[in-house]
Amino acid sequence: MLTSSLSRSSSPPKLNVKEKHDDLSSFKIKYKLFPNSERVYKKSDLYPDVRINMRRIHLADTTHADGTRTPNAPLDLYDSSGPYGTDRAVDVRAGVARERAAWLARRKELSTESSLAHVTSSGAGSLHFPANTPVNKSILRAKPGTNVTQLHYARKKQITEEMEYIALREGVPAEFVRSEIASGRAIIPANVNHPELEPMIIGRNFLVKVNANIGTSIVDSNIKYEVEKLSWALRWGADTVMDLSTGKHLMETRQWILRNSPVPIGTVPIYEALERVNGDVGALTWDLYRDVLIDQARQGVDYFTIHAGVRLAYVPLTAERLTGIVSRGGSIMAKWCLIHHQESFIYTHFDEICEIMKAYDVSFSLGDGLRPGSIEDANDEAQFAELKTLGELTKKAWSHDVQVMIEGPGHVPMHLIKENMDKELDLCHEAPFYTLGPLTTDIAPGYDHMTSMIGAAVIGSHGTAMLCYVTPKEHLGLPNKDDVKEGLIAYKIAAHAADLAKGHPRAAKRDHALSKARFEFRWEDQFNLSLDPERARAYHDETLPASSAKVAHFCSMCGPKFCSMKITEDVRAYAKANRLSSKNALEQGLKDKAKEFKDTLM
Amino acid sequence: MLTSSLSRSSSPPKLNVKEKHDDLSSFKIKYKLFPNSERVYKKSDLYPDVRINMRRIHLADTTHADGTRTPNAPLDLYDSSGPYGTDRAVDVRAGVARERAAWLARRKELSTESSLAHVTSSGAGSLHFPANTPVNKSILRAKPGTNVTQLHYARKKQITEEMEYIALREGVPAEFVRSEIASGRAIIPANVNHPELEPMIIGRNFLVKVNANIGTSIVDSNIKYEVEKLSWALRWGADTVMDLSTGKHLMETRQWILRNSPVPIGTVPIYEALERVNGDVGALTWDLYRDVLIDQARQGVDYFTIHAGVRLAYVPLTAERLTGIVSRGGSIMAKWCLIHHQESFIYTHFDEICEIMKAYDVSFSLGDGLRPGSIEDANDEAQFAELKTLGELTKKAWSHDVQVMIEGPGHVPMHLIKENMDKELDLCHEAPFYTLGPLTTDIAPGYDHMTSMIGAAVIGSHGTAMLCYVTPKEHLGLPNKDDVKEGLIAYKIAAHAADLAKGHPRAAKRDHALSKARFEFRWEDQFNLSLDPERARAYHDETLPASSAKVAHFCSMCGPKFCSMKITEDVRAYAKANRLSSKNALEQGLKDKAKEFKDTLM
Repeated sequence: MLTSSLSRSSSPPKLNVKEKHDDLSSFKIKYKLFPNSERVYKKSDLYPDVRINMRRIHLADTTHADGTRTPNAPLDLYDSSGPYGTDRAVDVRAGVARERAAWLARRKELSTESSLAHVTSSGAGSLHFPANTPVNKSILRAKPGTNVTQLHYARKKQITEEMEYIALREGVPAEFVRSEIASGRAIIPANVNHPELEPMIIGRNFLVKVNANIGTSIVDSNIKYEVEKLSWALRWGADTVMDLSTGKHLMETRQWILRNSPVPIGTVPIYEALERVNGDVGALTWDLYRDVLIDQARQGVDYFTIHAGVRLAYVPLTAERLTGIVSRGGSIMAKWCLIHHQESFIYTHFDEICEIMKAYDVSFSLGDGLRPGSIEDANDEAQFAELKTLGELTKKAWSHDVQVMIEGPGHVPMHLIKENMDKELDLCHEAPFYTLGPLTTDIAPGYDHMTSMIGAAVIGSHGTAMLCYVTPKEHLGLPNKDDVKEGLIAYKIAAHAADLAKGHPRAAKRDHALSKARFEFRWEDQFNLSLDPERARAYHDETLPASSAKVAHFCSMCGPKFCSMKITEDVRAYAKANRLSSKNALEQGLKDKAKEFKDTLM
Repeated sequence: MLTSSLSRSSSPPKLNVKEKHDDLSSFKIKYKLFPNSERVYKKSDLYPDVRINMRRIHLADTTHADGTRTPNAPLDLYDSSGPYGTDRAVDVRAGVARERAAWLARRKELSTESSLAHVTSSGAGSLHFPANTPVNKSILRAKPGTNVTQLHYARKKQITEEMEYIALREGVPAEFVRSEIASGRAIIPANVNHPELEPMIIGRNFLVKVNANIGTSIVDSNIKYEVEKLSWALRWGADTVMDLSTGKHLMETRQWILRNSPVPIGTVPIYEALERVNGDVGALTWDLYRDVLIDQARQGVDYFTIHAGVRLAYVPLTAERLTGIVSRGGSIMAKWCLIHHQESFIYTHFDEICEIMKAYDVSFSLGDGLRPGSIEDANDEAQFAELKTLGELTKKAWSHDVQVMIEGPGHVPMHLIKENMDKELDLCHEAPFYTLGPLTTDIAPGYDHMTSMIGAAVIGSHGTAMLCYVTPKEHLGLPNKDDVKEGLIAYKIAAHAADLAKGHPRAAKRDHALSKARFEFRWEDQFNLSLDPERARAYHDETLPASSAKVAHFCSMCGPKFCSMKITEDVRAYAKANRLSSKNALEQGLKDKAKEFKDTLM
């Protein structure tokens, strides 16, 4: 999936290429716990070594008008932040915990490859890195004739540790997770070479997920900053991360990211393939691309964006568009097809790609290389021709028991969004949809996290399983850490709004807890329950900095003399004191109580 | 409509009340023109003294691969910024231009009141202000037995200057404007005492409008800063402004705002009524409220939020809500009803209110005093009971030829938004809907401009005519100028996304121009066409500061070596050079051209 790659902005970037290699040998990442939050664990009954972590927010008591108190139960939240949601330092050179390694060790279908190094036809494949780079302890792959994908196990009616882990996280039966995987309606991106993974699921009958893109670029490359951005993205709620690095040191950068990521990592392998031929599109070959896939699968990448639907015949369909082909992967393949006047080698070798995917359980993210780059190009013939092909390839991947999700646009006006979802479900047989926004207007560069969060919420409410975030720098430049956070908050809002709209049974709990805290003037709880406790507190304190104001029964909007929420409390107290239900208040003689109420209020 | 009121934050606010009276005698406001923009005018054929202003953005030529150039026509935009969209200094003490005064002078139904001062039953009414306050030159009202509302003229088949002005602005026939007004589907808030007004229309068959709230508060009051915020809100695209001031000097503050506002000003008169009784809700009376309405109508307020639907019988319906009554006006009236055990005096005196409204052509904004304050309370019995009453009152207002719009929520999850619009159209007979957001989740205080812009775009696409902005400070504190801008940009995006979704014939022109500029690497044009040229440019320059980069055929996302848009240009050039239409490219023998193309690209 192509959007902006990301890079640091702490010093003003320049046009000349950076290749600063920071000393990473003593590099540690340490965050604080969110306020009043605690990391808690929940254990599986099925597997003794499966446990999930959650974030528990402790809440203050409710104080009633008569001074009595009622405790409020703490709220447990789904937590994708891994070690970056704790206050423990992470030694990034060592990599993060590998709890999944024990599960993988029990799978008889897996074998350990004899050497970390391997020879490829292009000669470039190897897992030898500079000193201090975190390493894979071993390289796993399926034994010949076996299949180690979650889809394969699900179809054999086996509930894996990964499925059990997800069942605990999502609060659903493990059998439901298994059946959703077996049907292809959901995927668990979980490469066997990613033991650091805390498994998660992407499917429309689960919580809507958010992906964050990071990665170096040819104009700005700094591995340390990429690992920082990874941790930062996870702290703010990313469910998966795509490493969209281009330029130099791609395998090394990816290695640092993978070994420090508890969430699935996705890549666009054609980017690395193009680097290996120094940007010469015409020189790309299937053999070279295959080597890249194997190298990245051996490293542990969990899903690949594969632009297999950019077929030769579709390229001319884009000629009359306002903005042509805007997907980087899509335009690489379009150019290759035209240069050679051949069908895309990705399309023609799709079965061989499936063989690689299933040996490591890499999931497909079938790329929308012909997605619209402007409102005017939305839902056109080129876009839907490609989508139809992605549906055919989905069936083919499923025949190999390889997991698939489908990438979607892009730029789409609101009234055309639902058609995208409907067509995807229809043409791609209900494989999970993974969309970039979509942006609902082109007119606000600098605010495209906003133009796109509208589309993301709408398409999420219709069933899109994962939303790829867009940052404020989209179309303009390389996002820094602030942009990553801003993009993630926007997309966590969109995903949650979609969860509420879909009636997810767990989704409304946080809204309930926060609104109850707000209504009861528990300011600290309101801050702590928000997506960004720090900003909520800072905005409050700009107007009412006194700490006494945080327990006061008023707020800055109305001032101390008058408060609408206070009045409502009076109304409620009155109705309750008089044992009036909301329905029969008037019948029971509200009139007689008027004087009594007046005395109470005055 | 209650949301946050606004105040300055340049120095850290404190709990103690501020009453700083800046010297306003030499206060001028001056902005710069937006880059490459020009103020242009369009004249009416019907009325010689009616002309609208527009913002014209000049664009660079398109440079083709062969070096030839094609000019791009400038883009003319709807412009609500009045004098604040020019580079001329505005002397706020004198007030802004009064072009509408000449139109009003021609209306035989209007008479000039004998004195600026007048006596009211509460003794507080007067238009005597401290020295230097900008004054009304005269006070107009309808002669006895006449009616001066736009609805009245429309029903008499008269096309007023205001209707003609709007027809030019919206690019529709004046007769269409008239018929929409006559049917009640649209309103023109245009008090006869607001000669500074540049008329605008609120209706679902026109561009979606955005309201910005400003106003002093009891904890922070500064008239100068309010006028600055007014000008700042207009600069960023507000179509109307509500003065939600509370605390002291309300009439004086409003006077400064009205005399310097080319957009309609709305108020919530119950706020001032409450100030006149020092916050004692029980002491509110019809006589006092009536005086406030007359005083504000004489000043020139264009629309009043009137919470006439908060009836005694509905108040107990809110007792079981999670967040009770959150509307400030709503809770004032609920408290009053309970204290006196009487039907709301606003409801019982509605016909008399209509008499005042029609004498000055003040429009109703029938307030949703029982709107939900949390996701959990959305679409409940209390909310829809009030809406039904608002529908009945709409009919009553229309029987007086008084214009009406209906206020809507609030906090509503996405799947319940459409029901709000459908019910409003049904129960309120297609009177224009004017909603606050709605917020689609409660969990993001600090980001409620974002949680609500999703809901605003959705309800706008279903037909809401005006969106009341929400700033990042909502629920937390008093927005400063940055928050006003952030809220407005969010809502201009939402309104535009809704316009696109509704297929408004003019809406897509800006998207087209901007995407064309983007595709052609006309960076300057892309910046200048965006909602916030300054931010777009700054974000670009963070990564690629060199001015040469702004004409370069690449961007920072992909670097100079490879660019997807460049490839698309090649694809297009190829298809065109070979006279291939997008449909028959393959049939015409794409294969034969492969070598030729290869030579071109390499």
